[in-house]
Amino acid sequence: MAKSKWIWHPGAFELYHSMLLHNRRTSAKTINDGDKVERRSVFYAPMWRADGPQHNAELTKTEVIDGDETIILRSNTPHSAIVVDDKKYPCDTPILLKKGKHTVVLQGFCANSFPAFYIEGNVFNTDRTWVTCNENIIMPSRNAGQSELYTKPDDNPEIFKFEYKRIDPVSIKKVNGGVLYDFGREMFGKIVIKGDYQDELFLSLGESYEEALDVDYCQICVNATLVGGTFESVSVAFRYIFIPNLDTPLDIFVNFEYLPLETKGSFECNDELINKLWKICEYTMLLNSREGFFDGIKRDRWVWSGDAYQSYFVNYYLAFDKEIVKRSIRILRGSEPMTKHINTISDYTFYWLSSIWDYYLYTGDKDFIFDIYEDLKEVLRFVEGRLAEDGMFERKPDDWVFMDWSTFDSNGPICAEQAVLCKAYEGISKCASLVGDVKMEKHALDRHNYIKEQINQRYWCEEKGAFIDDYKSGKKNVTRHANIFAILFNLTSKERQEKIVKNVIYNKEITPITTPYFEFYELDAMCKIGDFEYMTNMLNSYWGGMLRLGATTIWEEFDPCKNGIEHYEMYGGKYEKSLCHAWGASPIYLLGKYALGVYPTEPGYKKYEVKPSKMNFTHFSGTVPTPNGLIKVSYKDNQFSVLSQIEGGTLIIGDKTYEIKADKEIRVSL
Amino acid sequence: MAKSKWIWHPGAFELYHSMLLHNRRTSAKTINDGDKVERRSVFYAPMWRADGPQHNAELTKTEVIDGDETIILRSNTPHSAIVVDDKKYPCDTPILLKKGKHTVVLQGFCANSFPAFYIEGNVFNTDRTWVTCNENIIMPSRNAGQSELYTKPDDNPEIFKFEYKRIDPVSIKKVNGGVLYDFGREMFGKIVIKGDYQDELFLSLGESYEEALDVDYCQICVNATLVGGTFESVSVAFRYIFIPNLDTPLDIFVNFEYLPLETKGSFECNDELINKLWKICEYTMLLNSREGFFDGIKRDRWVWSGDAYQSYFVNYYLAFDKEIVKRSIRILRGSEPMTKHINTISDYTFYWLSSIWDYYLYTGDKDFIFDIYEDLKEVLRFVEGRLAEDGMFERKPDDWVFMDWSTFDSNGPICAEQAVLCKAYEGISKCASLVGDVKMEKHALDRHNYIKEQINQRYWCEEKGAFIDDYKSGKKNVTRHANIFAILFNLTSKERQEKIVKNVIYNKEITPITTPYFEFYELDAMCKIGDFEYMTNMLNSYWGGMLRLGATTIWEEFDPCKNGIEHYEMYGGKYEKSLCHAWGASPIYLLGKYALGVYPTEPGYKKYEVKPSKMNFTHFSGTVPTPNGLIKVSYKDNQFSVLSQIEGGTLIIGDKTYEIKADKEIRVSL
Repeated sequence: MAKSKWIWHPGAFELYHSMLLHNRRTSAKTINDGDKVERRSVFYAPMWRADGPQHNAELTKTEVIDGDETIILRSNTPHSAIVVDDKKYPCDTPILLKKGKHTVVLQGFCANSFPAFYIEGNVFNTDRTWVTCNENIIMPSRNAGQSELYTKPDDNPEIFKFEYKRIDPVSIKKVNGGVLYDFGREMFGKIVIKGDYQDELFLSLGESYEEALDVDYCQICVNATLVGGTFESVSVAFRYIFIPNLDTPLDIFVNFEYLPLETKGSFECNDELINKLWKICEYTMLLNSREGFFDGIKRDRWVWSGDAYQSYFVNYYLAFDKEIVKRSIRILRGSEPMTKHINTISDYTFYWLSSIWDYYLYTGDKDFIFDIYEDLKEVLRFVEGRLAEDGMFERKPDDWVFMDWSTFDSNGPICAEQAVLCKAYEGISKCASLVGDVKMEKHALDRHNYIKEQINQRYWCEEKGAFIDDYKSGKKNVTRHANIFAILFNLTSKERQEKIVKNVIYNKEITPITTPYFEFYELDAMCKIGDFEYMTNMLNSYWGGMLRLGATTIWEEFDPCKNGIEHYEMYGGKYEKSLCHAWGASPIYLLGKYALGVYPTEPGYKKYEVKPSKMNFTHFSGTVPTPNGLIKVSYKDNQFSVLSQIEGGTLIIGDKTYEIKADKEIRVSL
Repeated sequence: MAKSKWIWHPGAFELYHSMLLHNRRTSAKTINDGDKVERRSVFYAPMWRADGPQHNAELTKTEVIDGDETIILRSNTPHSAIVVDDKKYPCDTPILLKKGKHTVVLQGFCANSFPAFYIEGNVFNTDRTWVTCNENIIMPSRNAGQSELYTKPDDNPEIFKFEYKRIDPVSIKKVNGGVLYDFGREMFGKIVIKGDYQDELFLSLGESYEEALDVDYCQICVNATLVGGTFESVSVAFRYIFIPNLDTPLDIFVNFEYLPLETKGSFECNDELINKLWKICEYTMLLNSREGFFDGIKRDRWVWSGDAYQSYFVNYYLAFDKEIVKRSIRILRGSEPMTKHINTISDYTFYWLSSIWDYYLYTGDKDFIFDIYEDLKEVLRFVEGRLAEDGMFERKPDDWVFMDWSTFDSNGPICAEQAVLCKAYEGISKCASLVGDVKMEKHALDRHNYIKEQINQRYWCEEKGAFIDDYKSGKKNVTRHANIFAILFNLTSKERQEKIVKNVIYNKEITPITTPYFEFYELDAMCKIGDFEYMTNMLNSYWGGMLRLGATTIWEEFDPCKNGIEHYEMYGGKYEKSLCHAWGASPIYLLGKYALGVYPTEPGYKKYEVKPSKMNFTHFSGTVPTPNGLIKVSYKDNQFSVLSQIEGGTLIIGDKTYEIKADKEIRVSL
């Protein structure tokens, strides 16, 4: 019997869970209603339109069967029916299909969530091969939505499949008239309290010790009333829990909530700081890997396109979980009509467009490109409907041009923004080629080439030897961002790239990057041109700086010049900074791609290169996951060795290349 | 304290209930699963995309208050917050607003339905004056949605406010080995069974006696299992319930479910058939007046634009309930993106466009025109995006050109379709003028004039003395439909109108109208030109024909040539015809508008005319509701008398006119 999956209207599952997750944010507020003052957890509305799923679905499959087959439709809703060769049946009824050709249609409605269907059959089992068939719901026809997480008849796609494990505090101590619970590192999950406490409890949560104790300013709190001697909170992030005005510690633990991802990538070396950093990056990623890739686990817990885009790359070198990338892409896409940029940010829309081809390059999963292609076209229609007359990006009044937490000359058509758009067109062209859309393939390539040319014409400043933010203002302001992209996306000549390294990257006059977010791109660019020292220095100083301050996960932003709780301030809030932010996990990607040196050169690692670099390590060893197996690379005693489970690889050491055979170790001495 | 209402994101309430109602249809199916054969009620999917509501809402109000005011937000969802002058509070918390200027924002999310808010305040009470304020959810800003049905703090807008009353069967008899319950006339509601019956019961329902007894072919059935000695079904329509294989009658009654509408219009005359018909039309309307105006109460129970359009007119002469018209218009509109015609039917979209100005003409409710105007523009954008290059309607492959259950030459750009589009532009132009959209006002008027001209140029056939269906086919086929519209919508010269009456309307060679649906337009047109006999004859023969066959409500279609259960057949189903179809209630409109002779000449009856006609009655008396009072008109002993509660009227008898003063009876002898 073929493998069955729960299926649904394409995107319904992701939109439903996206809607829920984007509406789970709360913040602690001090409420003074005259009679009393208290601090309560209050709903925090999402910034953007949180689209719900299509509540109707209609999916069909036509197939010839060799022998008889009995099928039974299971559904999550009583408002469902199965139509076999124009005859209609309800759920849970055995239907005999005789040998021959049959057309089966599944119809359903679910007001509270979305209709989902499951059939265990031989040919008519539910999977991606079913297609939408009601042109009044969606055109053109699409393949059914499905997930590897929901394959059993008693699965329920309305409940996201997290796993749970009990974790107890590592220390409990009395302080400031209350009790402080320390869980040793960042946690995410449901706080459980056991005891016979009668009054309402106030739990002040903190990613830091200081935040938890600062009950009037903590970002996240829990108001708990024990019923029948127990309480379980919604899922929240914290390391510390402080309960003020409490004499006797209560029995508290956390039902740690996580997505069970297998860590397939690894990296270990002689430098203990790097080893520790890699583990902390891994844990940061694990916490933020959920329905989609989250930005951070404490404050928003939203899916942001720019943040997720980087998580995809880290994921390709860590868990290699295709499902979470696909979910993130659909969550970010939302539903029609597209009236705003993704997360309202123009660059975030452009990263989204780029992410599709990148996904294909790493995974070789052609199905998804076909599944998402109409959505991609719709996003491009939206983008092109807002470009300037000359085809370049211009900021519309309601666009948020983010790029980075940094100051640019103009918040409009800065050079970096054009660069990201230019890059997006490159991926679109390749996707179009894959699905056979010749017209779009050419169009997108033309746009890519045109914008690249314009960037070089308009934004290059010979005097500064660098790209400037804005060519109209006359200020000739140079920031790192566009210049980093010019290297990373190959947008300019080798000569100009060399000038950029000198005049921008190594120029201390140019404001340094303060977010791990943009460090990702800076280090990626520098590694790309073979300057590994810049990267390893930064791992030591910048990431190492956080670790030396006791970080158990990577922060949203880090400024070595700050002191004490200054580190926790952001957006005008004393503790509003996230101390567990996915965009800090890039060392996993950087070490996998440039130290181990593994990357695909044809989609899905059909061909790939291993171009390891010893950097400043005396020895290292690690693995990189691919769709069909692991690639292990190590360096020791001046010798590289590669052991790969898959064919198609080329080992590059200096000027020499060596063919990699599956399961056959190669050793090359320097 | 000002009157508060529950408020929500504009349209959310209507979309939510629309989604539910369009997914309540079931049909009885015979299931043979090998072991046993049984007949079960199975889900019947809606034909069109049933849009759900926006699950997020954000509404605001800024106002200066003279004195202190304490407000408390109530909401149907815990995911809600109230932000007062940038400070955030949860629900159910008293908040003191001091004298002065304040800005209050309400934010909410509801996954299962839609967020709704309620504040009892003096100035900051919730009502239509709150506006949307999150431009990521909707642009431009709109007024809050609200309904006169939900004004109390413990109201719940998720539950539609129907009322219920117990009705017992008028007869119970044993027949065909089972028991038949007759409720005397068409019912709608929840069937309640009391008793200690153990097995599952099968209830075969029938609008007719024959249908109920024909257990293998009944359209609607109920599978009932008594729990704790009782069972209550979902709401269904029927007159008869038959339970086969039952010896002892069970205690069965119906919880009749209805919208409590006050019948304000009336008509009584010397002709008992007409009096009975009027009452039957009234009851037909009552049954179909629900979340919106339904087509029929048994089969679909869906809101169809063409059907609802006629119900609006009947309503203006019966209950004058503005709320149900507004709900119907929003239900039909659905949400963005508009990718299909309303109900997938092109003419139904055009009627929708016309209905907005008609609503304003009868009600004078300017607020709604402002509230719906952006939606109207979006519908027009959709329509104009699909017109032929010459600006005329052309059929796209996925359009359903319905017009009537009748045979036309071509299912494409038939003349009648152009006529309905032409009429729509007229209303759009007036709406645009009202909201101050000068550009649209001119555009729509230009289009109206252009299409009118083209209809006369292209579709008029001098040889036939009539408009033909299609000017390209060469067949010169004449149907009644376009010709009726030419008269009704004033699309052609008086001379041509006279030719139409002779060559089409009174021409027995031209296929007669078989649906009460299109009889509405035919009779309206004939009355418009003062030919009342055509109408009264039709009431006697056509509507009277149904009554003589025992109809307790008006049927979907009636062909006097058919016999016995042939009358119940439609769409290939033995009993698929609806015997309670709203589009049959037009006599209420026709008698109110043309016998009593009452109609507005300025929006909201600010000015109106009363132009009564004795027709073939010896005496009659009736009332017509208006926004501000009733108008009573009677005829007796060759004398008309008018008593109106409102100013602004002109009585027209023959060539003479008389000013109508409020509350002062005028009598004019013929």
